[in-house]
Amino acid sequence: MPKTNKLSKRLYMSKNLEEALHWRYATKKFDPSKKVDQKLVDKIIDAALLTPTSSGLHPFRVFEIRNQDIKNKMVPIAMGQEQVADASHVLVFAVWDNYTAERIDHVFAEITEKRKVETGRYNAYVERLKAAYLNRDARLNYEHTARQAYIGLGFAMAMAAELEVDSTPMEGYIPEQLDELLGLEKLGLRSVLVLPLGYRDEANDWLLNLAKVRPSKEEFLTVIE
Amino acid sequence: MPKTNKLSKRLYMSKNLEEALHWRYATKKFDPSKKVDQKLVDKIIDAALLTPTSSGLHPFRVFEIRNQDIKNKMVPIAMGQEQVADASHVLVFAVWDNYTAERIDHVFAEITEKRKVETGRYNAYVERLKAAYLNRDARLNYEHTARQAYIGLGFAMAMAAELEVDSTPMEGYIPEQLDELLGLEKLGLRSVLVLPLGYRDEANDWLLNLAKVRPSKEEFLTVIE
Repeated sequence: MPKTNKLSKRLYMSKNLEEALHWRYATKKFDPSKKVDQKLVDKIIDAALLTPTSSGLHPFRVFEIRNQDIKNKMVPIAMGQEQVADASHVLVFAVWDNYTAERIDHVFAEITEKRKVETGRYNAYVERLKAAYLNRDARLNYEHTARQAYIGLGFAMAMAAELEVDSTPMEGYIPEQLDELLGLEKLGLRSVLVLPLGYRDEANDWLLNLAKVRPSKEEFLTVIE
Repeated sequence: MPKTNKLSKRLYMSKNLEEALHWRYATKKFDPSKKVDQKLVDKIIDAALLTPTSSGLHPFRVFEIRNQDIKNKMVPIAMGQEQVADASHVLVFAVWDNYTAERIDHVFAEITEKRKVETGRYNAYVERLKAAYLNRDARLNYEHTARQAYIGLGFAMAMAAELEVDSTPMEGYIPEQLDELLGLEKLGLRSVLVLPLGYRDEANDWLLNLAKVRPSKEEFLTVIE
């Protein structure tokens, strides 16, 4: 058990994140005149990069869209949601369409090198991964890579909130069209999430002043003592 | 663009989370003698509760397991991974096995009440959700609810790291057996993730001193200017 003074310190330090998670909301209207400083965008992307993922494979990528023309083209793809055009930057999370031997080998070559362990150290582990994934339906593997991107969305949104950058987690768009626009198929990627970043238009965001509603604690949590 | 002094302040405030995300790692060996203060566990669960989810449906629940007997029974289910027994608390993330009219109606009744908007305000939106989900294969709906739980895992792990609580995100267990142990099926739930919480056993954790390896920034990020 940590000493009480340490406990108080940790609780105090975490206040900022706690307040940030209450502060954030799915921004419905961005102020297009406000740009997010690139240093802040970089921090948000770095948080997504730090995401832990299944077996360390990190099967997702981020596309950072600054180009206004591309952002405009995303509006009909996002079924008219103007946030993708009004946002300062739009992040697109895209995942491996499948696990392949090359992808798995590449990751473990990197891990072997960066950890300075002997060549072949992870061979048995890699073989187990390949046995599990390579004979499995591509659809199932894609569902697995997609889930990992959602952890990254969590880290990215937490960091955005800490930085008082507004964001809108979006699934509501036509993936095939966005994949086509960004040329993802030839990269073996499929988009799964869109995260516009910017600053809220306080006067025109209908959601801003509505209560954040979550399940009650009783509904959400079961304690097994 | 925020004023420079505000920017510096935000960057400074976010340092704690940034350091926390670097500090955390998938703990392989917990010290079973160290308990996490309940106040800290509550903060971690509250972060998961604050997770934004698709259409605000929040289709996941958390089981907080303190009972040592249940934790011990989870070891074979987790294919021998002792973290579930050695951890102070084990969180299990479980998701709706399907979307149903009752579940959707219940959420929007809550939203209507808590936001103090007129009855029926969300009727058209609810009908669109039902049209999209209720005629769809249960498997697809489950894949969708599962993804939302992974955002919650991200928020929970970020908060745990802020609080210097160690955690291990785990998919490697036999879901059917854990669902059986916790009686999830009759609740219409399926477990998707296990997150032991505790304090690392520094002397005996083989992963602790190995480098955290992620894709290079070049591999991870594509900027579209």
